[in-house]
Amino acid sequence: MSAGAASPVSVTVEATDGAARATTIATPRGTIATPAFMPVGTRAAVRALGTDDLDLLGPQVVLANTYHLMLRPGADVVADLGGLHRMMDWSGHLLTDSGGYQVFSLGPKVDDAGVQFRSTYDGSTHQLTPETAVDIQALLGADIQMVLDVCPPLPSPTAVVQAAVDRTAAWAERARRAMDERRSEGSTQALFGIVQGGVDEALRRQAAERTVAIGFDGYGIGGLSVGESRAEMLPALAAATAVLPVEQPRYLMGVGDPLGMLEAIARGVDLFDCVLPTRLARHGTLLTGAGRVNLRNARWARDDGPLDATCGCPVCARWSRGYLRHLLLVAEPTAARHLTVHNVWWLLRLVESARAAVFAGTVDDLIREVRANWK
Amino acid sequence: MSAGAASPVSVTVEATDGAARATTIATPRGTIATPAFMPVGTRAAVRALGTDDLDLLGPQVVLANTYHLMLRPGADVVADLGGLHRMMDWSGHLLTDSGGYQVFSLGPKVDDAGVQFRSTYDGSTHQLTPETAVDIQALLGADIQMVLDVCPPLPSPTAVVQAAVDRTAAWAERARRAMDERRSEGSTQALFGIVQGGVDEALRRQAAERTVAIGFDGYGIGGLSVGESRAEMLPALAAATAVLPVEQPRYLMGVGDPLGMLEAIARGVDLFDCVLPTRLARHGTLLTGAGRVNLRNARWARDDGPLDATCGCPVCARWSRGYLRHLLLVAEPTAARHLTVHNVWWLLRLVESARAAVFAGTVDDLIREVRANWK
Repeated sequence: MSAGAASPVSVTVEATDGAARATTIATPRGTIATPAFMPVGTRAAVRALGTDDLDLLGPQVVLANTYHLMLRPGADVVADLGGLHRMMDWSGHLLTDSGGYQVFSLGPKVDDAGVQFRSTYDGSTHQLTPETAVDIQALLGADIQMVLDVCPPLPSPTAVVQAAVDRTAAWAERARRAMDERRSEGSTQALFGIVQGGVDEALRRQAAERTVAIGFDGYGIGGLSVGESRAEMLPALAAATAVLPVEQPRYLMGVGDPLGMLEAIARGVDLFDCVLPTRLARHGTLLTGAGRVNLRNARWARDDGPLDATCGCPVCARWSRGYLRHLLLVAEPTAARHLTVHNVWWLLRLVESARAAVFAGTVDDLIREVRANWK
Repeated sequence: MSAGAASPVSVTVEATDGAARATTIATPRGTIATPAFMPVGTRAAVRALGTDDLDLLGPQVVLANTYHLMLRPGADVVADLGGLHRMMDWSGHLLTDSGGYQVFSLGPKVDDAGVQFRSTYDGSTHQLTPETAVDIQALLGADIQMVLDVCPPLPSPTAVVQAAVDRTAAWAERARRAMDERRSEGSTQALFGIVQGGVDEALRRQAAERTVAIGFDGYGIGGLSVGESRAEMLPALAAATAVLPVEQPRYLMGVGDPLGMLEAIARGVDLFDCVLPTRLARHGTLLTGAGRVNLRNARWARDDGPLDATCGCPVCARWSRGYLRHLLLVAEPTAARHLTVHNVWWLLRLVESARAAVFAGTVDDLIREVRANWK
């Protein structure tokens, strides 16, 4: 049942600083230098961006969303259009989530077999099982699949979290078997397991051990950053990463705020995804070296300077706060695009600087520096 | 009162085919090869596009809208940000309308002095006069200004159209004087007069003669394509162009449908603007060599081909109908951008082919060809 020698993913740890690590993940598509942030392309596009924008931004991995794509345009349509890479004309890595996270937010019917839910598009009924989640993600054709898991809200009673860990483990075994079959037929998609366990360190450790025992090509750490404090999150995260194999990728799902990411890097995480930079951009909130900036503020109306004087992004190189604020306030669609380019660029560069800090042994210094402007 | 030797605009007629002409317009900024289509950048951005997209599309002139910009962000703010060219970082030509067209659609208070109207943004009261329209457009800083004119709806009684011609002429003289003063202070902005006159050929001729007598750097033909049939529009248009000086630009305002533009080119028009390609794009309607295509149609869901097999635009080169339809149907903002790039590209190339047809003496053939797929 172990991914064993057949795994399409291998990790070279190039440097460490405490628990923090800089690695290169090798896949059939190429390599991913970590730590790495993965922008979210929910519906096969990072919101407000085209693939041509992604070419300029250069994220190493883009995440796409199984829940949305299985409903619109449909996984079979994506397959007919050549899979996500060809459809988007994106040559970088892609990762698809399992759809579980979105589905569980809809209050679905869950049993041992899987989860039944209604489409938010048209109310139609759909089912996801560990096996169909693998099948659908195979049609989508990303480089990395995630297993279907059970993500309980926080706080939840221990029994609920334990039940989620149990069912997630049972589903993980089934997903692993489904992928093993595909792999024997030549699939080179990677499959990552997901560690649940809430904020209880013992449960996190147990969940990590059980997931590792099944054996995956990498490990997601799920069910964190769902409302709990960072003081609750970090020990649970550390309990999980302590158990995860050194030679496989660790991916903290749904975390992308600057300080939270750095704290997680310090605890051994390699990969992150989050809608934060793109969602904030659409609301006019900028990520900058001086912290968050609200571009709607009247003080920027006549400001001829860039969004962030220290930023090298194509938007900061070209347009002023005053012009971008104007476009934002009159709801020109290009405003969302420009601000998204800036925010994603800024966050990608922050994570690059974290990687450099691992090599330099200065992760703590970087965290202190970022803490001065970010909560 | 004539623009005379001081005009910042000169025209070289390079070829003719009947009344159709291919010219080069020279301005202090550079040259414009005509016939030329000017995409509309209402709020200092072509809707859904950034200036980086304009760089790829290469329109020779972009139109911006005085009504919108005087209200948001304010002409003084645009001036503080360096004027439209610097604010947008656009090095091509810009033309601003006078704001009159928008204002008259709001049912304003009009008297000999000017026009009083309420802002559609916040209900505040504003005034435009021939002189303030020049002042505001000076702050905006485009290469070409348009005079404030009176645009009556069609159909209107002859007396109403005559009154609009009279007031437009009186306002044109005042605008001309205001610009002469600025020019004596070093301004190199061009000022175009506007020929009104409805669909009455005699009134159009009269209006053209009176506008030419005042003397401008170029001539807009306004108040057409406002609901009348093409059979009504074309004779009125021809009556105007017959009077306009050969060595000055003629600009048919608000016309940009493929066949209408070609018919106007055949009657001696050089310049066009219209929201048609951008507005249609946002609704999923494509301009193609085979006519209009509705991308929302289910027949394109799994279509791996380009929007138009004969189009060389960056969107057709890269993405399929199926993918673009998906983005459109799930309202990804990048859909509007991609479809706008295609439509504007396609229309710019159509007008380039009309220019080539003037040189080749085949304008009638081109019109016949386009008429097969366009009404």
